[in-house]
Order: sequence, then structure tokens, then C-alpha cells
Amino acid sequence: MQSQIFELQYALDTFYFLVCGALVMWMAAGFTMLEAGLVRSKNTVEILTKNISLFAIACTMYMICGYAIMYGGELFLSGIAGSETLTSDALTTSAENGFGGDSVYSAASDFFFQVVFVATCMSIVSGAVAERMKLWAFLWFAIIMTGFIYPLEGRWTWGGQDVFGLYNLSAIGFFDFAGSGIVHMAGAAAALSAVLFLGARKGKYGPNGEIRAIPGANLPLAALGTLILWMGWFGFNGGSVLKLGDIASANSVAIVFVNTNAAAAGGAIGALLLARVIFGKADLTMLLNGALAGLVTITAEPSTPSALQATLFGICAGLLVVVSILALDRIKLDDPVGAISVHGVAGLFGLLIVPITNPAVSFIGQVVGALTIFTWVFIASSIVWAMINVVIGLRISDEEEYEGADIAECGMEAYPEFTL
Amino acid sequence: MQSQIFELQYALDTFYFLVCGALVMWMAAGFTMLEAGLVRSKNTVEILTKNISLFAIACTMYMICGYAIMYGGELFLSGIAGSETLTSDALTTSAENGFGGDSVYSAASDFFFQVVFVATCMSIVSGAVAERMKLWAFLWFAIIMTGFIYPLEGRWTWGGQDVFGLYNLSAIGFFDFAGSGIVHMAGAAAALSAVLFLGARKGKYGPNGEIRAIPGANLPLAALGTLILWMGWFGFNGGSVLKLGDIASANSVAIVFVNTNAAAAGGAIGALLLARVIFGKADLTMLLNGALAGLVTITAEPSTPSALQATLFGICAGLLVVVSILALDRIKLDDPVGAISVHGVAGLFGLLIVPITNPAVSFIGQVVGALTIFTWVFIASSIVWAMINVVIGLRISDEEEYEGADIAECGMEAYPEFTL
Amino acid sequence: MQSQIFELQYALDTFYFLVCGALVMWMAAGFTMLEAGLVRSKNTVEILTKNISLFAIACTMYMICGYAIMYGGELFLSGIAGSETLTSDALTTSAENGFGGDSVYSAASDFFFQVVFVATCMSIVSGAVAERMKLWAFLWFAIIMTGFIYPLEGRWTWGGQDVFGLYNLSAIGFFDFAGSGIVHMAGAAAALSAVLFLGARKGKYGPNGEIRAIPGANLPLAALGTLILWMGWFGFNGGSVLKLGDIASANSVAIVFVNTNAAAAGGAIGALLLARVIFGKADLTMLLNGALAGLVTITAEPSTPSALQATLFGICAGLLVVVSILALDRIKLDDPVGAISVHGVAGLFGLLIVPITNPAVSFIGQVVGALTIFTWVFIASSIVWAMINVVIGLRISDEEEYEGADIAECGMEAYPEFTL
Repeated sequence: MQSQIFELQYALDTFYFLVCGALVMWMAAGFTMLEAGLVRSKNTVEILTKNISLFAIACTMYMICGYAIMYGGELFLSGIAGSETLTSDALTTSAENGFGGDSVYSAASDFFFQVVFVATCMSIVSGAVAERMKLWAFLWFAIIMTGFIYPLEGRWTWGGQDVFGLYNLSAIGFFDFAGSGIVHMAGAAAALSAVLFLGARKGKYGPNGEIRAIPGANLPLAALGTLILWMGWFGFNGGSVLKLGDIASANSVAIVFVNTNAAAAGGAIGALLLARVIFGKADLTMLLNGALAGLVTITAEPSTPSALQATLFGICAGLLVVVSILALDRIKLDDPVGAISVHGVAGLFGLLIVPITNPAVSFIGQVVGALTIFTWVFIASSIVWAMINVVIGLRISDEEEYEGADIAECGMEAYPEFTL
Repeated sequence: MQSQIFELQYALDTFYFLVCGALVMWMAAGFTMLEAGLVRSKNTVEILTKNISLFAIACTMYMICGYAIMYGGELFLSGIAGSETLTSDALTTSAENGFGGDSVYSAASDFFFQVVFVATCMSIVSGAVAERMKLWAFLWFAIIMTGFIYPLEGRWTWGGQDVFGLYNLSAIGFFDFAGSGIVHMAGAAAALSAVLFLGARKGKYGPNGEIRAIPGANLPLAALGTLILWMGWFGFNGGSVLKLGDIASANSVAIVFVNTNAAAAGGAIGALLLARVIFGKADLTMLLNGALAGLVTITAEPSTPSALQATLFGICAGLLVVVSILALDRIKLDDPVGAISVHGVAGLFGLLIVPITNPAVSFIGQVVGALTIFTWVFIASSIVWAMINVVIGLRISDEEEYEGADIAECGMEAYPEFTL
Repeated sequence: MQSQIFELQYALDTFYFLVCGALVMWMAAGFTMLEAGLVRSKNTVEILTKNISLFAIACTMYMICGYAIMYGGELFLSGIAGSETLTSDALTTSAENGFGGDSVYSAASDFFFQVVFVATCMSIVSGAVAERMKLWAFLWFAIIMTGFIYPLEGRWTWGGQDVFGLYNLSAIGFFDFAGSGIVHMAGAAAALSAVLFLGARKGKYGPNGEIRAIPGANLPLAALGTLILWMGWFGFNGGSVLKLGDIASANSVAIVFVNTNAAAAGGAIGALLLARVIFGKADLTMLLNGALAGLVTITAEPSTPSALQATLFGICAGLLVVVSILALDRIKLDDPVGAISVHGVAGLFGLLIVPITNPAVSFIGQVVGALTIFTWVFIASSIVWAMINVVIGLRISDEEEYEGADIAECGMEAYPEFTL
């Protein structure tokens, strides 16, 4: 009977992982809609193509080698093949072949949950380089990022390995619950590198330094994308407790859901109010970015704050992201969807405030961890972008940019009957 | 071993609450898309901003005081703070601090499930006042509605308290499974009050009493919103069984899913056919409102009807909502999305038919309960709307209305490249 | 205590079914958005109306008679009425009344999961006949298809009954895990029959045999629809394991999730690359159809391949669907959304490759099963289409087609402010 109880717990924890993983997969739709709504109609097909392709590439590369690099185990997931694990001694099998040695859930469910994280990291880059990068250059980068750069970096914290054999992030007090740094700031670091290589979109900054707004073509899609991300984040953070099947774990998962929601709400409120003060209006795009910034911030530690603290952290993130978006524009870093501010700045902020509610985490450790992640991803990405730039070039031609990436890269229009 | 079984049941029930809560949160996207699709393009940014802001406000106000008013417990959710409940004696703790004394699931999961209901109630108002109300007036109202008016009203039934100490709704046989009255009709009551204060949109009714259709700008979004709501409703009703982890509860949850779906299908069919008879065409907006009316109606009691009864109830709701929408237009009550008919009329209908399948419920009790809820929310809302009207005004100026709320309130357009 | 463990397992398996069913219901939104994005704006309201109506009809007809035909049990689901099964002896009751005699989950949850499959099957037809079929003709067909044609066919495999008393598909080695043939190819067979009756859209093929592209009006919606289907498919395949609550079942469900995702990713990659070779561009619609073809293909057997095999199967499906779409256009079979290629060709391909990874399945059995299903659905559908054609006609008039089905059938426009 003891074994029956164990089987049930195993099944419940596996199901919890799969449901959370499906919610994180759903975030791919969120990024796709958000970015499709915030670009101009002439670049919409390209960004849709890019987002779906990167998801497919991320899933495939992580299956081939990424997961093995990050957590050990065999290439091509050969340890979690099909039918052979369909026996009730799968647990032993999975423990022996290097997948989650002490896990009490399906090894395949662990892979499923992790693989959708890689895609999230890569989706962040997509928005920042919108409207001017070559599609195939981006997809080549996606192969390297999801197969190697991200898995190596994730290996240092979640895989428990030393950074190039030099020091251990966990040992020096670094902590990142669900990936404010490991997923979001890492994506932003790769995005920042790309934006530095690419430069701004034509016409974004005038000859006398003036900043010109380039409004998105379809704001309902941007709002939908944000709400999809908001929902998917329950899986992102909630699943990162990694276990559900006992009272303590279940309580933790529930608190993570509450705090994730509270931080998003706080972020929306903070950005709405600050934008009201600055612009005198209720700025929808700032509101959306505020909610997302709240979500990114709480991701570093959603299990220890109270709901009130989570709301306050979210408000701070919402204020911060408005300031950051305006500041990046001032220094002419052209990020069409605000990805660097939302995922980079709010991600770093989230890491740095973990010690406020989690006394086991050190501020120095968070700084060293954040620096390590940022430096690695930024340098490795820069090398890859530079190589791609030499071989096939990163930026579409001026004529293609004027005409739109859709015709140039995809040969079709997103809204052929609507635009003039 | 007994305690392990209990821990598993606790975990399963908590997870069930969280999954259902995430589905209800998803309804926020449904309302947002539905309303964004049914207004004109010049008022779309404003309605997106309004819906996301009200969700953030609802989550925050309910955390600060709403939940405590409705169910007891402490302000700011201080009873479900972060790390301190992460121990396996959380159950005892939660029982002691006033959250769900006899609950066998996480107190935080209960809050999460309840908080998304408040937002649903508030979303209903948003559509009815579209295209003419000041954004900030609406948000001030949202603070009062979600922090005080709704929690007080919910307290009388779901919180088990007497109505102002006078009478007890449960004791007189009132029953509302998941909120046909407490959530939907309550939202419609606040909406009705607002529409009476605001009056109709310019141009809706001609000088000779003619009724002019003002078509929505983006019907695919309206259809998407309806399907999102349809899906989210499984969480709304299914989660309201409040327990899953034994055979009787699991059967009840399953029957609630089946009946919720059947009523939505019935509502769609009823409205489709009646609109065919009246207009000679297959009216999409009536179809959508019919499905929603079926959902609202079954919400009062989805656990006792057979699937056939649920379908028939849905069909009646679908017929009723078509008639109601046409009737309200006839008396010049301008409700751009049909919210008062869908949530108010179908919500009342749902309450009144509960005794047909649930013999423990009295018709008189349903009438008294419905009257109590409607009267309280309508009067309290009217006072608040009147106060806001005096201080900052409820309605945008004629020029702003002509130009669109988007430019006036948000300073941007939803589809800058598409509209002429 | 044993019985408590059993109750928990029952509850967990029921919940798993309901969550998976909700995900499959969500696929209705996926088909709706996909098709609404791929048709011209003047036919968008009609396709929205059609998809929501067919879902409502499918749910109602399957409740009335379809489920009883397919799995036995009583008409009108009278065996799973409301309150009477809310007792803890429901299991016995459900076993006795003919619902899943040996089931260890709620009979209502089984119905819920199955009913959303019928709707999926019917949704496939909707896209292929877009832009030229009469709405009411389609809805009459939906009644017959979901109430009789599909249930009879499903009865032969999933219901375990002989084909017209002649031979038993399971006994001759036919296997279809979640419905590559039973759901998807069946839908495609009905669609093919309809397309043969209808002929091509006006203007699709020129007088000299040239093929003219008719671009979809709203590609972000098509991408959203594809991502919704991708997500919903986790429920479609994952739920078809039919059990979760022990280690072996949980592992199987997890592997099904991983392989479903891998095949979709492979399909996207295969179609993207082949379209690049053929057209020199990254064709978004081919990418979307490739991902869907990967999903349809893996549906025949997602539990035995390794993740690498699932990816490779997906890639093949992605290549195949591009070739098939081009070939059908060459022979002037006008399928506006590619439904016959995605669901028919990739569905058949999925059936035929099951023996590669599942040695218990015979290639001959798969061929016979596929032929049986196709022949039955094609002939039965053709008879029904012919009868509807005689009585009310299948095709809208040339003037209505030129003006658009929206005005003719629904009396409203999808985007009244955007199109010229």
C-alpha cells in the first residue's frame, strides 16, 4: 500500500509538471502576439515566422544536446526513449540513466518543463531585433543559443556545476528561483548584444537627435500577448517549485501563484501611474510592459515574499521599466518592444531584491551571479553575432527595411486587405 | 501512512484550485478581447487599458481588504505570508489564522481562486460603459467595487454572514453555486447604474427614435474572447465545487464541466435560431452572446441538472438574451456589448431555475437573494458613481467621444495603419 | 485506507481527463482563429459563426446520441445525470449503467473528453469548404456528421465493435492512439467529399490553368490559431493515454507530451526548409501547416517513439504537407486552409508509420483500418452532401461569393472600419 501511495504521488507530481509545462509553452503564443502587435504591419509576418521557428528550433536543439549539457544525461534524450520506460520500474531506470537521480516524477516531464524555458529565453531576443534583422541570421543564432549558450549558463546554477571549474554560484549564495537571471536577463543580454551590432531602425532617431515613436500596428494583439504571458507565468514560476505532492510543497506552489499574480498587478499599476505623471495619459504599452516587468522581477523569488511585498516589488518594477525604456531611447538603443528593459533591467532588479525576503541568499552572491550570467551570455552572443555578421550579414538592406521584412523575407503580407 | 494520504489529498485539492484559478484569470483575456472586438477602433486602446488596469486593481484591492471583508481573516493577507507557511504544519497555521478553518487545501490557493472572481465581476461593468466613460472615473469605481461593494455582498452568501445583521440568505434557501447572482448579476447591476448615469453614445439613437447599429471593429477578437470565456468557465464553475479529492467530489466536478459546456452549446444554438427567425441571418454577435448567456445561467447550479437539462436551460438563456438585447435597445439603454442582458438577465434567470433541479433550494429564497444582491449593488454603485460624477465627471466630452477615447485618454491608436 | 487511496486515484484520473478535455475544447478556438486568419476579410464572420455553431452542434448531438452509438450507454446521457451520481457509490453506478464498465474515473469526465474530439473532427471540414459553402448547408451536415457518421466510425476502433459486423479492426492489428485516422483523416475525408461537390472558389484557377494565390486577410490570427492547436494537442494526445494515476501511466503521459511537442517542432522545421528551397522565402503558412502536420502525424502513436524519432516523423510530415498542398492545387482541388493535406495526408502517414515504433501493430492492419475509415466517411458524407445539395443547395450564388459570405449569410462585416 505504501508503494501505491508513492505511485500516486509520482503521478501527481508528473501531472503538475506537465500542466505547468503546457502553460510555459503557451508563453510562446504570448511573445508571438505581443511582438506581432508592437511592430509595424510590414514586419508582422516575419516576426510571426521568427517566433514559431525559434520555438521549433529550441525544442529540437535542447533535445539533441541542450538538456544533456545543462543537466547531464545522454544526447538525443536517449535516456528517455519511448516504450522502454513505460514500465513501473521507470523510476529506477530514470534514476540510473542520469535523469534526475533523486526525482520522484517522470524524467520526460522534467524535460518537457525545461524545454519550454529555453524557448522563452530565446523569444526575448526576437522582439529587440525586430524590423531590421535578417530572419535566417536570427535562426542561426537561435541554434547556438538554445543548444549551447543557454544550457551552459543554466548548468552553473540549476545543473549545480562550477562556472568553468572556477567557482560555484550556489556555494557563494546565488539564488534564482525560476529564472529572472538565468532565463530573462540572459535573453536580454543576447538581445543587447544584437541591438549593438544592428543599430537602430531607419527613421527611429532623427538627424538632430529627436526620438520618433514608431507605433505598433495592432495593439489588441499586444494586450492579448501580455495576458497570455501573465497566464503562462503561473506555470513558469509555479512549476519551478519542482514538487507539489505534499502539504509543504503544495503551500509553496499556491503562494507562488498568488505572488506571481500580485507582482504582475503591481507592475501594471506602477507603470500606469508613472506614465500618467510623465505623459498625462494612460499609456497602454507602458501598462503592458509594467505587468511583464512585475512578472520578471518576482521570478527570482516568488516563494518567500508576502502578497503585499510581491505587490510592492511589482510596483517598483513597473516604475523602473518606464524609466528604463525612456533611458534606453535617450541613449539611442532601439528596442522596438522594450525587451531589454522588461527582461534585463527588471530581471536584474528581481535578483538583487531576493535577500530582502530570503535570508539564505546573499546580496554579494546575487551580484556575482548576475555578473557571471550577463558576462557569459553577452560575450558568447557577441562572438556568435559577429560570426554570423561576417558570413551572411545581420541586417536587411535599406530597401528591404523600407519595404518591410515581410515581403523581403517571407514573400507575403500580414494584412493584405487592410493596409494602403 | 494515513497522514501521507492526507498530504496527497491536500496537494491534489490545492492543485485543482490553482488550475481552476488560472482558468478564471484567463477569463480576463476573454473579456478584454470580447470588448475590444465589439467597440469601434477609436475606442479600442482605452478598453484594453481599462480591462488590464481593472484586473490589476481588483487583485490588489482584494488582497488589501476585500478577501478579509468577504471571508474574515486579516487585512493585507497577512495570514498567508510567504515562507512561514512553507512548513508541513501549514494546515494548522492556516486553520488558526482565520483562513478556511476547516479547509483541507492551501489558504493561498483559496485566495487565488477567489481573487480572480472579483476581477470577473468588475470586467462585466467595463463593456457596458464602453466608448463614453472617462477611464480614470472607471478605475476609481473599480477600487471601491472590488475592495468593498462586491466583498460585502459576497460575504452574505459565500461568507455565511447575515445581510446587515437582518437576515441570512442561506437560511432562507438562497443558493448560488458559482455566482450567477453574486458575480454576474452583481456586475450587471453596477453596469446598469453606470449606463443610467452616462446615457447613450452619441449617434446611437436618432432624433426620431430610430436605433442605429454601431458595429464592432474586429469581430474575430470578439469570437476569440467568447471562446476564451467558454474555456475559462470550466475553472469558474468547476473550481466552485471547492473540492476534488474523493469520488463524490470528482464526479461532481466532472458533471459541472459537462453541464457548463452543454449550457454554452445550448445558448449558442438558441440565440442562433432566434436571430435567424428575427433577422433572417446568422447573427454572429447574438451567437456569441447566446453562448455567454448559457454559461451565466448554468453558473447558478451546474451540479444537479442532467446534461440534457443543462442544454435546455442554455437554449432558454440564448432565446432570452436575444429578446433582452433588443428590448434594452428599444428603451434606449445603450449597452455596447450586451453585458446587462448577458450577465444580468441571464444571471437572474439562472438563479430562478435552480429549484427545478435542486429541491433543497426555494424559489422564494432565490427571489429574495436576487433582490438583495441587486438592490445593494445597484444602490451602492449609484452612490459611488454619483460621487465620482461630482468630483471628476463620468463622461468624456463630446469632442473626445467624436475623436475617440483612445486619443483622449491614452494618446495612441489601436490600429494606426489600418483605419482611414 | 485502501479505499481512500482508490478514491484519490479516481479523483486524480478524473481531473486529468477534465484538464485534457478543456485543452481539447480550446482547440476549437485554434481552428476558429486559424481559419479566420486564412480566409479573406469578406468571409470572416461566416467562418467564425460556422466554427462556433459547429462546436455547439457537436456537443449537443454527441450528448443526444453520438456517445451512445460510439461507446454504448443510453441516449441523452441519461446514465450520467446530475445529482444522483454525486454519491460515493458513483463508481458502481457508472459501471452498471454502461459507461466505461471498468473505468476508474468519472463517467462524465470520459464524456467530456470524448465530446471535444467530435468537435475537432468537424472543425476540419469547416476550413476546406470556406468562402463558398452555404452556412446552413454546413450546419445540417454537422448534425449528421457529429451525431452519426463519426460515432459509428469511432465505434469500430475505440468502441471495440466490428465494422458492420464483418471484421474487427483491433483484431486485425489496426491501432490509432488518439485519432490520426479516426478524427483527423475522417474529417479530411468529409472535407474532400465536400470540396468535390463544391468546386473551387471563383478566381482561384485562371482560364489557362494558372493557379492564383488568394492570401488570408489576417495572418497573426492564423499563427495564433496554430499555437492554440499546438497547446491543445497536449490534451488531445496526452489525455488519450486514458489514465494517469500510477507510475507507468504517468510516464506514458509525459512521453506523449514530449513527443507531441517534438513532432510539431519537427513539422515546422521540415516545412520551413522545404518551402525555402522551393520558394526561396520563409513561407509562414507552410510553416504553420508543417507544425500542424507534425501534430496530426504523431497522433497515431505518440507513446512509443523516442523524442528523436518523433522529431524525425514530424520533419517528414512537414515535408509531405508542403508537397501535398502544392499537388492538390495542381489538380485544382481548392482547399483554402490546406485542411485535406494537413489532416488527411499527414493523418494517413501517421497511421502507416506506427509499426516502425510499435511492433504490436501491423502495417496491413493500418492500411485496412485507414481504408475502412476513409471509405465509410467519404461515402456516407457524399450521400449527405448530395441530399443537402438537392434540398437547399451547397453553394452560395456567384453574386454572394463576390460580395462575400459575411453579408450574404450573416449580414455584417468582420472589420467594417478597415477594408476599403
